[in-house]
Amino acid sequence: MPLRRAGAFLMARRLRYAMVGGGTGSFIGPVHRIAARIDDRWELVAGAFSSNPARSAEVSTECHIAAERAYPDWQSMIAAEAARPAAERIDAVAIVTPNHLHAAPAIAALDAGFHVICDKPLAASFEEGRRIAEAVSRSGRLFVLTHVYTGYPMVREMRRLVQSGALGTIRIVRAEYAQDWLTRPLEREVHKQAEWRSDPQRSGPAGALGDIGTHAFHLASFVTDLQAEALCADLSSFGAGRQLDDNAHILLRYPNGVKGTLWASQVAPGRGNRLWLGVYGSEGGVEWSQEEPNTLRFTRIGEAPQRIERGSPACTAGNYVTRAPRGHPEGWLEAFAQIYSDAADLITGSTEDRGASLAPQIEAGLDGMAFISGALRSNARNAWLSRDEWTDNQ
Amino acid sequence: MPLRRAGAFLMARRLRYAMVGGGTGSFIGPVHRIAARIDDRWELVAGAFSSNPARSAEVSTECHIAAERAYPDWQSMIAAEAARPAAERIDAVAIVTPNHLHAAPAIAALDAGFHVICDKPLAASFEEGRRIAEAVSRSGRLFVLTHVYTGYPMVREMRRLVQSGALGTIRIVRAEYAQDWLTRPLEREVHKQAEWRSDPQRSGPAGALGDIGTHAFHLASFVTDLQAEALCADLSSFGAGRQLDDNAHILLRYPNGVKGTLWASQVAPGRGNRLWLGVYGSEGGVEWSQEEPNTLRFTRIGEAPQRIERGSPACTAGNYVTRAPRGHPEGWLEAFAQIYSDAADLITGSTEDRGASLAPQIEAGLDGMAFISGALRSNARNAWLSRDEWTDNQ
Amino acid sequence: MPLRRAGAFLMARRLRYAMVGGGTGSFIGPVHRIAARIDDRWELVAGAFSSNPARSAEVSTECHIAAERAYPDWQSMIAAEAARPAAERIDAVAIVTPNHLHAAPAIAALDAGFHVICDKPLAASFEEGRRIAEAVSRSGRLFVLTHVYTGYPMVREMRRLVQSGALGTIRIVRAEYAQDWLTRPLEREVHKQAEWRSDPQRSGPAGALGDIGTHAFHLASFVTDLQAEALCADLSSFGAGRQLDDNAHILLRYPNGVKGTLWASQVAPGRGNRLWLGVYGSEGGVEWSQEEPNTLRFTRIGEAPQRIERGSPACTAGNYVTRAPRGHPEGWLEAFAQIYSDAADLITGSTEDRGASLAPQIEAGLDGMAFISGALRSNARNAWLSRDEWTDNQ
Amino acid sequence: MPLRRAGAFLMARRLRYAMVGGGTGSFIGPVHRIAARIDDRWELVAGAFSSNPARSAEVSTECHIAAERAYPDWQSMIAAEAARPAAERIDAVAIVTPNHLHAAPAIAALDAGFHVICDKPLAASFEEGRRIAEAVSRSGRLFVLTHVYTGYPMVREMRRLVQSGALGTIRIVRAEYAQDWLTRPLEREVHKQAEWRSDPQRSGPAGALGDIGTHAFHLASFVTDLQAEALCADLSSFGAGRQLDDNAHILLRYPNGVKGTLWASQVAPGRGNRLWLGVYGSEGGVEWSQEEPNTLRFTRIGEAPQRIERGSPACTAGNYVTRAPRGHPEGWLEAFAQIYSDAADLITGSTEDRGASLAPQIEAGLDGMAFISGALRSNARNAWLSRDEWTDNQ
Repeated sequence: MPLRRAGAFLMARRLRYAMVGGGTGSFIGPVHRIAARIDDRWELVAGAFSSNPARSAEVSTECHIAAERAYPDWQSMIAAEAARPAAERIDAVAIVTPNHLHAAPAIAALDAGFHVICDKPLAASFEEGRRIAEAVSRSGRLFVLTHVYTGYPMVREMRRLVQSGALGTIRIVRAEYAQDWLTRPLEREVHKQAEWRSDPQRSGPAGALGDIGTHAFHLASFVTDLQAEALCADLSSFGAGRQLDDNAHILLRYPNGVKGTLWASQVAPGRGNRLWLGVYGSEGGVEWSQEEPNTLRFTRIGEAPQRIERGSPACTAGNYVTRAPRGHPEGWLEAFAQIYSDAADLITGSTEDRGASLAPQIEAGLDGMAFISGALRSNARNAWLSRDEWTDNQ
Repeated sequence: MPLRRAGAFLMARRLRYAMVGGGTGSFIGPVHRIAARIDDRWELVAGAFSSNPARSAEVSTECHIAAERAYPDWQSMIAAEAARPAAERIDAVAIVTPNHLHAAPAIAALDAGFHVICDKPLAASFEEGRRIAEAVSRSGRLFVLTHVYTGYPMVREMRRLVQSGALGTIRIVRAEYAQDWLTRPLEREVHKQAEWRSDPQRSGPAGALGDIGTHAFHLASFVTDLQAEALCADLSSFGAGRQLDDNAHILLRYPNGVKGTLWASQVAPGRGNRLWLGVYGSEGGVEWSQEEPNTLRFTRIGEAPQRIERGSPACTAGNYVTRAPRGHPEGWLEAFAQIYSDAADLITGSTEDRGASLAPQIEAGLDGMAFISGALRSNARNAWLSRDEWTDNQ
Repeated sequence: MPLRRAGAFLMARRLRYAMVGGGTGSFIGPVHRIAARIDDRWELVAGAFSSNPARSAEVSTECHIAAERAYPDWQSMIAAEAARPAAERIDAVAIVTPNHLHAAPAIAALDAGFHVICDKPLAASFEEGRRIAEAVSRSGRLFVLTHVYTGYPMVREMRRLVQSGALGTIRIVRAEYAQDWLTRPLEREVHKQAEWRSDPQRSGPAGALGDIGTHAFHLASFVTDLQAEALCADLSSFGAGRQLDDNAHILLRYPNGVKGTLWASQVAPGRGNRLWLGVYGSEGGVEWSQEEPNTLRFTRIGEAPQRIERGSPACTAGNYVTRAPRGHPEGWLEAFAQIYSDAADLITGSTEDRGASLAPQIEAGLDGMAFISGALRSNARNAWLSRDEWTDNQ
Repeated sequence: MPLRRAGAFLMARRLRYAMVGGGTGSFIGPVHRIAARIDDRWELVAGAFSSNPARSAEVSTECHIAAERAYPDWQSMIAAEAARPAAERIDAVAIVTPNHLHAAPAIAALDAGFHVICDKPLAASFEEGRRIAEAVSRSGRLFVLTHVYTGYPMVREMRRLVQSGALGTIRIVRAEYAQDWLTRPLEREVHKQAEWRSDPQRSGPAGALGDIGTHAFHLASFVTDLQAEALCADLSSFGAGRQLDDNAHILLRYPNGVKGTLWASQVAPGRGNRLWLGVYGSEGGVEWSQEEPNTLRFTRIGEAPQRIERGSPACTAGNYVTRAPRGHPEGWLEAFAQIYSDAADLITGSTEDRGASLAPQIEAGLDGMAFISGALRSNARNAWLSRDEWTDNQ
């Protein structure tokens, strides 16, 4: 029953963080807070949860935050926290607002010397993303993007398998992310999530592409260490009156002749949240599905397919980032927790350096923005586009 | 326990057929013979099984065929059978040779007044296919192509569901056919199947595309009644020294904005023979996999996914083409048998006319050849192609 | 793609058989006829299909049986066939009547020198079974019982695995056979199958126990070569007004401390026909389910569970009794066909002797009758019973 | 995306608890601590983690516990905490020691006025259990037993379904809990978990029966509200030299003719931790497996089986105790967290009273001890035992 080594958690103190967004009615805010608690390395001490003071206060009370650290807006929060003595000042800011509200608080926080943990996609445009990247660079602060699926133990195990050469030379990479919650035009009803995610003003120019396509795109890169170099995208907006894409079919080409595909859909009835990745090489294949996240299906060519279980002796890398033994399922919140723990590791220096960490950082965010931009252009031109054509200025 | 109605089988006599190809060592020949026996509507009475007389004799003995009807070649067989009195003459010829040997015997058999049941793909080129189509047209004989997967009860049920409107307006059609048997370059070893299927002289210009891609392409059309009108293909030949494609990633566009994808691979380690189809619409989605062929996964949006079982009250169309009750699995041979029974129905006139039959006929064969041609061209041009660009002369 | 060796089928002629029972409306009669056809080693040439002449004639016509060999009853059939010249006389009689009508025709056929293929359970009582066994013994004829599930390739593979020692010392054997078709009291409606199977006059004193419990009991023995030596049964009749058991919970003890359980139910909503077997030993475990009959789940302790696929290199014994390659599902009818092929092998002497054959023979039938008798007594006494207490006179 | 209502969490403060046991190397201690953190309603402020001071200190540091509240033993801890002012005194004690060390600290804590959250099984003997029950009774304090599996949303949904009558009259209850970690005699190697769990001095007289059998037994009662009234147990100790049972086959009888079975095994290779429950009634059946904990398989007789997903509209009761939306898997730690939240609800009075709560309390613990005692006796006597024979003095 291999458990996460307790020693990894020995820290002089819990790290302190503040949250921007995540007020009552938010989907992802409470999730970040649970994730931050699971491994007990973070303490939520401040927040600017909502532009609505009542909603903000509700969260503050629920989270037992001192009244004076429940701020009316992120600007005053960053200013006030920066002014506190080091012993109580926050270490990091978690940003869980809609996409168009990532860049401003992220840049301000970085420039004030705080680390940032930010929800995905990075921003509402490639240009915004680039400005965040510049702030990361000039501040030297850590920027972690919650591409949470990379926190799953079996995704890390899949990465290890692929990169260990167990599959031989990689040939094919297939990523799918299928949901069905926008099958009907929910955004026309009162549905906070559907509303902002389908509004170009708040979500940016991409719908499914940005919301879940970037997850799938990142996952494929994370596992294979390959960067796509060309794509051909076919986007649709099936929902009546919908302005943003809700279905994306994309062909991908990676270096050395590796071929990929990506499907992102919010209109696939029957699939609640099926993120799936298959990687096939000259000697074997491996598949992972979020619908059964605690196992991999791994096949060496000519041998019987194996079901590799989290926590089992057949699993190695995955067992360093797990909390429950084999057969005791972990889920999405634990994957999310891993990203917070990775961030804590990076901040407290318990991994060698940021480059060695598996936490998704600013590069992953920019890569996702380039992917969005490239897919939108490819779709508009009805043609394959090489990576240098994805953005104006990459 | 709804079984196929026995009455459907009341025929004055079994139909008589001869086989071209299918000698010792053949994969598909024995399969056709089992399929023809299962519903007891066909009798194998003659054959030109192999250019090798010893191999041909072996099959004749095994099948208890009268010595004088074991022919040295198909030319003499067609001539001799045509000369027999009607009471013992064959009704049909089954062609199970490699692709490049379909057209000649098919055309000769049709012109001699025999029906033809032919393995897929139709031929080694679109042009050959067109000549077969002309022979079908001038002879008025039946031509059935063994796109056997359409014989699965649950595929027919899927078709009924989709066409009944249970999914609302169709939006997305995803077809996959993944195998792994060519992951290593088997064709360089002594492997009869790998050898001819990877040889352009015998297989035609397409590899996975023709061998299994056409199955997936046809299946998508069969279930949805939609004809693709554009495609963008990305083909690869991963096997060392392989001349034909062994992996195909294809984007498809159907009328009215319906979007599709198709994956055909013979190099996907872990997947022996996974044919899969998913169809998603404005009100529901349905998925079928040959790995679990006796059920459908059907979801009405907002309701719990259902597992519709062959033979159950929840299944309707599928229960007319089944032999075993719910919970008693049927498989590939029974699906194959269905195609032979469909052919018998058509010949004996027990369905209204050929147009109403679900058996894959010459049109399906030509459509497959157009698909092959279009995918090869799209890949060569690295671009989307509309259907009128798929062949020179369609 | 390992297929059944064609050479195994080289016979001078097809064997001839007659059927007793199996008229219009019969469930199992048509299934036997398909099974007999699949491997092309049997020819149906005579029958006494029904006491109703019209129904019997219907089947005769459907099966293209010569009018003079469609008999009004089995007595006249056996007499007339015995009187035919050897060159056209039947080799065997297939008995597919309700349980209480097995013994008389079976004994008469054996005594007339015919082999017998009989549906299960053997008879309506242990005493009847013993009289059949005596007839087998004095006639020297073959008696094959269609415990069809033992014909599945992966069940044979499971047997090989277990008996090869791959599991170490066997410790636990768990068998389940769950159906739901008698959840409601169907026998009160017009339902031919439900009617006779729930009528003690025709079915014998056991319900689910005899109809499906004997399958599960035999399967466990077949795979492990173990004979239960004690049992403790808890039977129920949940259906309103039902006289026979429809649910059986049974504890079993095998030699050397091996422990077993058996569940047979016809009242388990959601399970159409789930036969399942799990065997666990000191070094590994293996599980098979008829819901996914083409694979085994095999685990060596400390290693990742494997999915062994029929037709794959990882499968050995199973590949000798299969017709379709890996990934092309076989089902229940093929398993059934295997029993008919086993019988043909035995009759034509292509296996060394009856003892070496895996076909279920008279001993399996008697063992099943002892099991039924023992379970009924154990239930009545509310106590464990050792095997010598199962019947009066075993 | 229905999430747990945040309002349920509005508490004036987090509850404070201390832990007994759970030092470095403990399996279940860290799990309790994670579970207590997830919903943010508990704060670990004190502990007597280990009789080994170094191990105890390690945990204290890791958990950021004030040095003066890291106690050398539970006796001093209870005394010291009871002496603290109310504003900082602990509310509850969590006991995570081996079974034989539950009773003493539990009774002391209760008598000192603290609530108790205790790992299962309740104690090392029925007699010990009864003494705890008396302490609960005289103290009026809450006693929650971590039968954690009842905290799974879909188990609660299953309970609702069953109790709503959706299955009609309950007929059959089948519970299984299969592990494989003791297949080899691990307790002879250095393996802390295997060691104490297989030692009668520390575990009590039951092995698998107590460790996991009580979970399965409780789960069946939890979901159906039925209390077994008779059992017949067949226990084995397969591991070489093992003193306690590692495999239990048990027949159960519930009131009104409902029949059950229970399998608990630690020697079932291939099954890491498969807890499974199936309940079948006159109108439907429902099954749940911890291997796929986010769904139920529910079938109304005559309809297609449904896959009811946590977080979906088809799920009701389950959606009140969940944190992540449909398709975002929750696991074992969240189920565990639910028990801690239930305890917090009970303590802060946010549910009507203890009787209405679904949290497993002292009665469940006693029932489990009776089950253990009854199964051991039934096995020893080789006979069915009614509940009044399970213990000397119940």
